[in-house]
Amino acid sequence: MKKLINRPEDVVTEALQGMAVAHPDLLKVTFGPNYIVRADAPVQGKVALVSGGGSGHEPMHGGFVGMGMLDAACPGEVFTSPTPDQMIEATKAVDGGAGVVHIVKNYTGDVMNFEMAADLARGEGIEVEAVVIDDDVAVQDSLYTAGRRGVGTTVLAEKICGAAAEDKQSLQQVADLCRKVNANGRSMGMALTSCIVPSAGKPTFELGDDEMEIGIGIHGEPGRERRKLAPAGEVVESLATPVIDDIPFQEGDEVLAFVNSMGGTPTIELYVVYNELYKLLEGRGIKITRNLIGAYITSLEMAGVSITLLKLDDELTRLWDAPVQTPGLRWGV
Amino acid sequence: MKKLINRPEDVVTEALQGMAVAHPDLLKVTFGPNYIVRADAPVQGKVALVSGGGSGHEPMHGGFVGMGMLDAACPGEVFTSPTPDQMIEATKAVDGGAGVVHIVKNYTGDVMNFEMAADLARGEGIEVEAVVIDDDVAVQDSLYTAGRRGVGTTVLAEKICGAAAEDKQSLQQVADLCRKVNANGRSMGMALTSCIVPSAGKPTFELGDDEMEIGIGIHGEPGRERRKLAPAGEVVESLATPVIDDIPFQEGDEVLAFVNSMGGTPTIELYVVYNELYKLLEGRGIKITRNLIGAYITSLEMAGVSITLLKLDDELTRLWDAPVQTPGLRWGV
Repeated sequence: MKKLINRPEDVVTEALQGMAVAHPDLLKVTFGPNYIVRADAPVQGKVALVSGGGSGHEPMHGGFVGMGMLDAACPGEVFTSPTPDQMIEATKAVDGGAGVVHIVKNYTGDVMNFEMAADLARGEGIEVEAVVIDDDVAVQDSLYTAGRRGVGTTVLAEKICGAAAEDKQSLQQVADLCRKVNANGRSMGMALTSCIVPSAGKPTFELGDDEMEIGIGIHGEPGRERRKLAPAGEVVESLATPVIDDIPFQEGDEVLAFVNSMGGTPTIELYVVYNELYKLLEGRGIKITRNLIGAYITSLEMAGVSITLLKLDDELTRLWDAPVQTPGLRWGV
Repeated sequence: MKKLINRPEDVVTEALQGMAVAHPDLLKVTFGPNYIVRADAPVQGKVALVSGGGSGHEPMHGGFVGMGMLDAACPGEVFTSPTPDQMIEATKAVDGGAGVVHIVKNYTGDVMNFEMAADLARGEGIEVEAVVIDDDVAVQDSLYTAGRRGVGTTVLAEKICGAAAEDKQSLQQVADLCRKVNANGRSMGMALTSCIVPSAGKPTFELGDDEMEIGIGIHGEPGRERRKLAPAGEVVESLATPVIDDIPFQEGDEVLAFVNSMGGTPTIELYVVYNELYKLLEGRGIKITRNLIGAYITSLEMAGVSITLLKLDDELTRLWDAPVQTPGLRWGV
């Protein structure tokens, strides 16, 4: 296992310590239970956004804590759901009296634990709305999921809803907006290589030197099929076609196109992929009006890519463009 | 070779096409000869900054074209110097009458071709100053270099000098500032795995499953030594100690600490590395007042990391903080 770490059991704690000393202007990290809150939390009168999930998907979610995006993130161990005590402590720490939205990726453990935390928070008088993101069109049920998995649309929902919360929209408005983003977003990913969970020390799955997995999950969960390596154009077609056909996205639609590295795929390849996606969408009459290209929801050092399309309207575009200041996404400030 | 590409010989062109359609608001790409200029070039009365080098180091340099950073970038084939005709065309395209600074990483081909382009540009009446970046303390001479290689400090020089050019500083001032950044910056990198140049189709070098290379170059040039894998703390000590001892950085210094992924190392590991670097510098009384953590000067999909320290003063800090709007670095706008 080739990783820049110390003891495998300390990776999450030490990465969080690194976050804390790197970004004290943006966020604060609490240990035991672990959670990250924006430096100025709680912001009085503003709806607070809390997300979380297993670690190993950096910069998601901790790297999206800050002005214009998340108020708090709860990092679990690698590929392991955070616990309800992390979520309840984070929820209490960021509640500014206007309620809290939990943005939850659809994995069984995450959903169960966030539900428990929401119940506990409500018992303490905090209004909580939970929104589950389930945008991955690859498979219906999966290894850790009943229904579709939550992937790339989560990043977009956190940005867009973060902007709405800064605008002092109400709890119900922000939660409804999050559901709208989920309804308008679809994703699918693929892997060229497996990742290695530090505590396991060996690849999560085996792939031949001439194979790739289409429809992979962000924990290495099985996808739709294993296939021989193919040119980027064919890979993009395999990912984008099910995404487009699902809503379906239609001629004349304006979309945000998000090309995401699974962690080990470098920028030069992301632009080759983006170029193929652009041509494919242009051929279908779908117009990319915003984009995001980089490593934003990863699977440790997995080589591979995911494609997310989000159907935009004026409201979503305006909120996407609004200022954001987090370690992972920053503009306008 | 597992890469998201089409034909190996088309990688650079297709990645540039991807850049062009992804960022028309920020930059324009010209093909044959290939160069990238900011969308509003030439900016009249402003010193223009041109850089370039082999492709495979993305987002450097094309991803740093835009307001507050580079006016133009000349991308060569993968790990191959761009040609003088690219540089002269780029120089002419961005000259706004106040002169042009060429920021050149110290590799023999880059230096030679930029010198030729500068001579040609001067012959056409454009004032050109060239600054060579040679910040890599790993080795004195290397495979493609007489003297030290140019690495991470290049990114910092492009940002800081870009801000100075926006301030309408003179050609001499911007060039002198670039030399100051080079004098104040030192770097060293390491690799856990080799990269694969697309046209070669096989690893540039072989490393055992239990080995790493300390002092690697960004094209896989040999470093100081091969060593057994070690914990992140030891790796950071091996990189940071020669960096600190070189200038030397001293107790009381304020620095920008730049932890860079070589391409295949994910964000979670970068924060483990940053945490170790922070502790080491704190122990020496060196204060990190700014940082940059991510993949900014890569070596295709190489797993590994480089550390750059830049000694800051009020001038450099102010220019670092100034607004920038490029695909690779963006804040303040």
